[in-house]
Amino acid sequence: MNSEELLKLLKSLEQGKLTPETAFERLKHLPFEDIGFAKVDHHRAIRQGYAEVVFGKGKTPTQVAEIVRAMLRAKASHNILITRANKKTFAAVKPAARAAKLRAEFHELSGTISIERSRKIQGKGLILVVTAGTSDIPVAEEALVTARSMGNRAEAIYDVGVAGLHRLLEHRDKLAEARVIVCVAGMEGALPSVVAGLVSAPVIAVPTSTGYGSSFGGLTALLAMLNSCASNVSVVNIDNGFGAGCVASVINKL
Amino acid sequence: MNSEELLKLLKSLEQGKLTPETAFERLKHLPFEDIGFAKVDHHRAIRQGYAEVVFGKGKTPTQVAEIVRAMLRAKASHNILITRANKKTFAAVKPAARAAKLRAEFHELSGTISIERSRKIQGKGLILVVTAGTSDIPVAEEALVTARSMGNRAEAIYDVGVAGLHRLLEHRDKLAEARVIVCVAGMEGALPSVVAGLVSAPVIAVPTSTGYGSSFGGLTALLAMLNSCASNVSVVNIDNGFGAGCVASVINKL
Amino acid sequence: MNSEELLKLLKSLEQGKLTPETAFERLKHLPFEDIGFAKVDHHRAIRQGYAEVVFGKGKTPTQVAEIVRAMLRAKASHNILITRANKKTFAAVKPAARAAKLRAEFHELSGTISIERSRKIQGKGLILVVTAGTSDIPVAEEALVTARSMGNRAEAIYDVGVAGLHRLLEHRDKLAEARVIVCVAGMEGALPSVVAGLVSAPVIAVPTSTGYGSSFGGLTALLAMLNSCASNVSVVNIDNGFGAGCVASVINKL
Amino acid sequence: MNSEELLKLLKSLEQGKLTPETAFERLKHLPFEDIGFAKVDHHRAIRQGYAEVVFGKGKTPTQVAEIVRAMLRAKASHNILITRANKKTFAAVKPAARAAKLRAEFHELSGTISIERSRKIQGKGLILVVTAGTSDIPVAEEALVTARSMGNRAEAIYDVGVAGLHRLLEHRDKLAEARVIVCVAGMEGALPSVVAGLVSAPVIAVPTSTGYGSSFGGLTALLAMLNSCASNVSVVNIDNGFGAGCVASVINKL
Amino acid sequence: MNSEELLKLLKSLEQGKLTPETAFERLKHLPFEDIGFAKVDHHRAIRQGYAEVVFGKGKTPTQVAEIVRAMLRAKASHNILITRANKKTFAAVKPAARAAKLRAEFHELSGTISIERSRKIQGKGLILVVTAGTSDIPVAEEALVTARSMGNRAEAIYDVGVAGLHRLLEHRDKLAEARVIVCVAGMEGALPSVVAGLVSAPVIAVPTSTGYGSSFGGLTALLAMLNSCASNVSVVNIDNGFGAGCVASVINKL
Amino acid sequence: MNSEELLKLLKSLEQGKLTPETAFERLKHLPFEDIGFAKVDHHRAIRQGYAEVVFGKGKTPTQVAEIVRAMLRAKASHNILITRANKKTFAAVKPAARAAKLRAEFHELSGTISIERSRKIQGKGLILVVTAGTSDIPVAEEALVTARSMGNRAEAIYDVGVAGLHRLLEHRDKLAEARVIVCVAGMEGALPSVVAGLVSAPVIAVPTSTGYGSSFGGLTALLAMLNSCASNVSVVNIDNGFGAGCVASVINKL
Amino acid sequence: MNSEELLKLLKSLEQGKLTPETAFERLKHLPFEDIGFAKVDHHRAIRQGYAEVVFGKGKTPTQVAEIVRAMLRAKASHNILITRANKKTFAAVKPAARAAKLRAEFHELSGTISIERSRKIQGKGLILVVTAGTSDIPVAEEALVTARSMGNRAEAIYDVGVAGLHRLLEHRDKLAEARVIVCVAGMEGALPSVVAGLVSAPVIAVPTSTGYGSSFGGLTALLAMLNSCASNVSVVNIDNGFGAGCVASVINKL
Amino acid sequence: MNSEELLKLLKSLEQGKLTPETAFERLKHLPFEDIGFAKVDHHRAIRQGYAEVVFGKGKTPTQVAEIVRAMLRAKASHNILITRANKKTFAAVKPAARAAKLRAEFHELSGTISIERSRKIQGKGLILVVTAGTSDIPVAEEALVTARSMGNRAEAIYDVGVAGLHRLLEHRDKLAEARVIVCVAGMEGALPSVVAGLVSAPVIAVPTSTGYGSSFGGLTALLAMLNSCASNVSVVNIDNGFGAGCVASVINKL
Repeated sequence: MNSEELLKLLKSLEQGKLTPETAFERLKHLPFEDIGFAKVDHHRAIRQGYAEVVFGKGKTPTQVAEIVRAMLRAKASHNILITRANKKTFAAVKPAARAAKLRAEFHELSGTISIERSRKIQGKGLILVVTAGTSDIPVAEEALVTARSMGNRAEAIYDVGVAGLHRLLEHRDKLAEARVIVCVAGMEGALPSVVAGLVSAPVIAVPTSTGYGSSFGGLTALLAMLNSCASNVSVVNIDNGFGAGCVASVINKL
Repeated sequence: MNSEELLKLLKSLEQGKLTPETAFERLKHLPFEDIGFAKVDHHRAIRQGYAEVVFGKGKTPTQVAEIVRAMLRAKASHNILITRANKKTFAAVKPAARAAKLRAEFHELSGTISIERSRKIQGKGLILVVTAGTSDIPVAEEALVTARSMGNRAEAIYDVGVAGLHRLLEHRDKLAEARVIVCVAGMEGALPSVVAGLVSAPVIAVPTSTGYGSSFGGLTALLAMLNSCASNVSVVNIDNGFGAGCVASVINKL
Repeated sequence: MNSEELLKLLKSLEQGKLTPETAFERLKHLPFEDIGFAKVDHHRAIRQGYAEVVFGKGKTPTQVAEIVRAMLRAKASHNILITRANKKTFAAVKPAARAAKLRAEFHELSGTISIERSRKIQGKGLILVVTAGTSDIPVAEEALVTARSMGNRAEAIYDVGVAGLHRLLEHRDKLAEARVIVCVAGMEGALPSVVAGLVSAPVIAVPTSTGYGSSFGGLTALLAMLNSCASNVSVVNIDNGFGAGCVASVINKL
Repeated sequence: MNSEELLKLLKSLEQGKLTPETAFERLKHLPFEDIGFAKVDHHRAIRQGYAEVVFGKGKTPTQVAEIVRAMLRAKASHNILITRANKKTFAAVKPAARAAKLRAEFHELSGTISIERSRKIQGKGLILVVTAGTSDIPVAEEALVTARSMGNRAEAIYDVGVAGLHRLLEHRDKLAEARVIVCVAGMEGALPSVVAGLVSAPVIAVPTSTGYGSSFGGLTALLAMLNSCASNVSVVNIDNGFGAGCVASVINKL
Repeated sequence: MNSEELLKLLKSLEQGKLTPETAFERLKHLPFEDIGFAKVDHHRAIRQGYAEVVFGKGKTPTQVAEIVRAMLRAKASHNILITRANKKTFAAVKPAARAAKLRAEFHELSGTISIERSRKIQGKGLILVVTAGTSDIPVAEEALVTARSMGNRAEAIYDVGVAGLHRLLEHRDKLAEARVIVCVAGMEGALPSVVAGLVSAPVIAVPTSTGYGSSFGGLTALLAMLNSCASNVSVVNIDNGFGAGCVASVINKL
Repeated sequence: MNSEELLKLLKSLEQGKLTPETAFERLKHLPFEDIGFAKVDHHRAIRQGYAEVVFGKGKTPTQVAEIVRAMLRAKASHNILITRANKKTFAAVKPAARAAKLRAEFHELSGTISIERSRKIQGKGLILVVTAGTSDIPVAEEALVTARSMGNRAEAIYDVGVAGLHRLLEHRDKLAEARVIVCVAGMEGALPSVVAGLVSAPVIAVPTSTGYGSSFGGLTALLAMLNSCASNVSVVNIDNGFGAGCVASVINKL
Repeated sequence: MNSEELLKLLKSLEQGKLTPETAFERLKHLPFEDIGFAKVDHHRAIRQGYAEVVFGKGKTPTQVAEIVRAMLRAKASHNILITRANKKTFAAVKPAARAAKLRAEFHELSGTISIERSRKIQGKGLILVVTAGTSDIPVAEEALVTARSMGNRAEAIYDVGVAGLHRLLEHRDKLAEARVIVCVAGMEGALPSVVAGLVSAPVIAVPTSTGYGSSFGGLTALLAMLNSCASNVSVVNIDNGFGAGCVASVINKL
Repeated sequence: MNSEELLKLLKSLEQGKLTPETAFERLKHLPFEDIGFAKVDHHRAIRQGYAEVVFGKGKTPTQVAEIVRAMLRAKASHNILITRANKKTFAAVKPAARAAKLRAEFHELSGTISIERSRKIQGKGLILVVTAGTSDIPVAEEALVTARSMGNRAEAIYDVGVAGLHRLLEHRDKLAEARVIVCVAGMEGALPSVVAGLVSAPVIAVPTSTGYGSSFGGLTALLAMLNSCASNVSVVNIDNGFGAGCVASVINKL
């Protein structure tokens, strides 16, 4: 039941079209059936400019394509984002997009598919995605595509790890320009501390599972980032480029 | 807003004492302000016969005593239970109970204080608390006092660890009699598997932090219990005698 | 040796058909050879309505089919349950069931095969299986099929994770109806705490290995569930849908 | 060397007041000695409205008081914040503040001392600090005092854990009002997921070391928060109320 | 019920002094009440020459002294061993031993108290206890005293860690003489591998919690010992000198 | 250089057949080149009756076959054992054995190949290998084949886990007969504690990597075994059936 | 901008060829654009004689070949090293080297490809690589090839684990000769402690992921090495033969 | 027995002053009793310039003083170093040093006592000890005092953590000057990667147990350092300033 329906129900009661008992029956479960609640939820989606997202892993290409078709039928203006997908999924999604006169794009490095319905930039500034190494790029690209799908201007700087400081420092103008920085690193996960010390923007740190041995699938980078001596750093899960892109987008729309 | 109030409001609207708009204003936040929701919560407390519980750790004796006084003023019939308390807390709580013509009892081994307002047995059968060793007794007693405070008949068998099987097997009649069994063990945590194999009752396993070295503060016992080859075992947190007593009580009242 | 046989032996002795020494010989190993002991075991199986269960993993389809055939020959009335099976196992089991004029059913999502010999409902109430996400469904279905095979009425609600509270709250009537709830969740494992706060029934929490990075194959969800702030929650092993179904069934038959 | 000084040096050289060699000497270490670099650092401090912070742990009261006196001598307008302090530290710091005609305030729960030099609100919206339990309050208060010292409007809601959902939902207006939310929880760490699902603001999750047994000093809550199914959550270190307050402040000033 | 009693009961029945029903009543619980079972247990204690052991930790001096008095009343010939004790416990135990005309001895390094009632050597060969460093001596002494109390000839070699190989090799004759070796080491736990490579005797490895940092309270040494490349090594818990002494004694009496 | 050779060299020197300088040259590296040292090593191999062992994992069938051929050429009387092998390795080894007029046997469950050159029983008693479940059999068989190859009488009892105690207790005669027991279990690893409580023999516990979820590849069983409340238990690495067989053999030959 | 260019710029300013403002513009970003900084970096590469290194893992053969071609075009005299490569990568790299009249060599055991442009020995002494077992050889060879590519004389001793001490001691002359020792071991990781006790050279310990069960992929060896009782040992990551080779080379060139 | 003595013995034998049998008796234990072996050990101590070291932790002041007195009696020229000591230990050691006309110095921050017998600088270059924060200073000072006691020129730079890069970069001349760098950091442990990228010297990384929450007593810093993306970094145990100083000294004397 949404607000309009509630008001209508109350008016029917006032007008004697309904007994108080009947109204009571319809209202007594209101707390949780209430569409107003869902609306808040809906409102949030709109406000955040969240793209509609499908987590592709564990779904067949056909399943993903069907979900996408349903989304497209809804004629909303949200962009559509499919994460953890592959070429087969893309092959299934492509015609679905084309049928809606839209173009699906496959971002191969990160296994992300995006369908753009709106190019409106809603984020107020630049989201900058920075990686320590080249093997962090897939996670970084997931963050990048996510941020863009959610209506943000987003750019990337790759391979500026802390053992070659000058590579990073060359980009200090771009770092200073960013309103939110997503910092992606595996191994010792030191990049967010160094980057956060150079800027005043919030830094979202993303540990990656690159590395071997005692990198323990990204645990080392995760722990290092949580213990950053810089105080403008917060952290998301290992390899969670999507989450970092979301958090950055939510902040960039404030 | 409870059901009566909602019905009253709806009748006022029907009777023209209220405009639909005013009613709408009062109803639109209903989902969460609704007393009906709180009532469910309240009803649950009554149905479960949950004692009113104060977690004593980290509170001063005075703070605990004040909370207890407030509980006693409410004149409910629930028993009152204070866990993780010490002698000083007991000294502060004792006069508060006496002032309400009740008697506070200190269970020294487990650091639990109970104030009985009702002796009604609500649980349908026997809750049996079993320990592997003598050092598991404090946790066991917390479960025991909790179960009793919540209106259950509860008994205990101590020191029947699996390396001396005959000690356990001597009690098989009592094991068979129990409707729910709480099984407390540290070190290798093997007791729940053996007990659960001997009975048809649900077994709530409680790992304890007794032991040393690679017992890792109860982690070993916890993991062992989670991997029990018996299929009527479920587990609560390390040293969580209170939780085990609660779960057992909830089941025993079904 | 069962009770009747023991009594018969004792009578034979009384009647002089047996010397005390012969009786002694037959009795001296009684503690462990005793059929009465095995009978208790058997009795337990009957009382609990435990289905006869084959753990399919690590067994060839032929091996599973042979075990099933042996079970079917025993002409017991227990339902038969095969967990962690696949299509090939099903292909081998199917004709075995058909030969016994029974029908094997393959539950593909959970890889469970059930053969129903009895439809008798032995559980007293409803077992409700609830999941946080769609990827938790395989584990949930294993719990569901297990509970049903053991003679319980069991239903499921899927995909009601805590970040979209209204989806969960819409089902509060069903939650309130359940006598036992199995709560299946991966990632942060928060669902059992929220569900347990809404009901008075015991909640069996099942962590799942879904998620990635620092979900550590379900360890995060497991730890979260063990630390639930709700006191009517107990926990089984990661992905242990079967165990949760068993515990729920044991409780539901009390 | 700042920009003005650099320009002045260059002009001196142009005007022949300096030889190129002398200028070279002064400039050759510029990359790292450069005041411009330090200025960026300084500028960042000003822009972020960072309070000047002393980490009190491991320092004697006298040491802390001396550092505070040095800060006060600098006559900057930053507020001063001392974290992880105790009464003795406060006794030492109090006269130092009084001598500067300022008032030191001791926040006993969190062991934080604040000296306010400016009451200017620089943050654009409300920072809301929410806790799951009462034992999370010390960490929450550290976040609160930090956020306020850095020039933000900050409020707190305590004890709204997920097992009693109605307590949380009663505050949904305040949740909706917040521009940034700091969410503090121990045990299963589920609160950030539920809160983040109700709002569109960024949520900074802070695990606390409250709990016992398998809470492993906050590790369980930390892992749960990193695996949140809500996509507007990022995480800081266990008990890091200060860090959460900083990150929230940095975001709130965007 | 022991064998004699069982035979007597059967004869009573034969002689008509007992009805089969009465006999049945007394026998039906036999499997677990059977004294024969306890006898096996007793027999084992005798055969192994197990000393009677009190785990002193967590018991008051008075409690330990009472247990010891009860042991002494039993007039058995087992030696008595109290582990994890301190001077106060010794002060309480001393007069109890003296009253029984025995002498209690306090082994200060390991906090072990022994009361010798028999000096009979039951072990067939020498048990040699070897340590890597001086800080491993307390654990080694616990093993030594345990082995001696259980009737073994036991000697010790201390401080022969692997980084100074010649110190160990000087003792190769003694190593070759030993029938069982207990090898105690903290830090990297390498000693058992080296010792086991020099001898043909079984080596019981005991990790100790000495060390700091990533020794993780003995976990590192424990893991190292479990992964020994020597194939005559088995391992007991961290700091478990008592257990090592027991295992060595059990083997030495074969 | 062995003792005889050393004496001979010294006599040559005495007899003037050698200068002191030449003798010095031959002796100066004695500490490590000394054949006496190697002899000890050799002697150990003979005394222990160690089979000659090839660790098959990571070696090609051809490599294994070549090593075996070399062993067979040496015409020693040791049995030959190849662990962690597969059918292909067996196919390569078979003709090598046949060429030496011996028969290679493939133990498929454990992937072990044995070539018997001697049937002499050197162990003094029975080595009994016991498993908790059927999935522990491969590891148990590795222990069994190892013990037999090293000249021991060895038997096995499978699937006597602690949740069905009567299955284990039925075998108590065999348990009592064993001189050394190898106890193999995964999941909660409780079997060694129960078995060790029933016997006076040393028990070698072998954790297995069977199980799932929080069994963590055998870690849970390993920790449980290390924390056994029985004092005649020592432990080897996860899945280390070979090691357990070796330790048991070393003990059984004492 | 290097020193010469800075001096030139300053002279141009002095000579009026440049305004102070233009100079200021060019200098203000100096701290990070400075060529002097990059030069230091370059200088380091030259001084260390670092080979140019490509981490092959995660790159296609074509990608690796392209990078190698670019390196070869640069006509530097550094050797080229490709780690974690396979035969396909080698097939792609081979013609690239041949085109530059160089010869690529594939080190199959370690999956390393080297292209030698200089045979100059820059290291002052011998780098000795020692392994505990045969399965540690791949990691050892990576260290060996790395050390040689970087201009060092490097030799290897394989399979001298601590359980057969005489095998190690036979090589004590070679151990004493080495200026730096790289010590590679899996399982209990004891070799570095023993080796370091025999020499005065720095020992670089490399844990390997060989082993099974509680070796936890090399974690056990890593921890053991970090806790070495020898004080001339430092450690690199699990399986990091390359890193060990680098560290050894850096030291050997001092 | 050293070489001279061996030669002498051989000559005595040649000259008939000794029978071959007597010589044999003296030589048969040579491999391990050999003084030549101990000499190597001794020689190593001299060559490395190792100070004589007492690990103070767990020793009484009297014990330490006695050991020191014994060292002083030996009249060697090695400096004496006592680590992990306190004021009481110093009070006991001081007069012992004075009696030998030497001066004991207490380094309070690190709890280190040094007694200088030689001021000879044996290390070839500068050992530089660098810390990330002020709380890392105690560990750094232990490294510093150790390096100096072993005859090295050693300096320190404190509080140059990576979040304030300019503080570190200001010291680049000193960094470039160092022959070996010891890099001490807690929290995220990022400093060694950054420092190692700026220099060509070997970097010894020392993680410290500073920090809280998920720093896990230095584990996070340790793991980060082991995963450094710089290839001239090796690592020692948490808080092992002594070890780092030793390794640095060993390298600096090459």
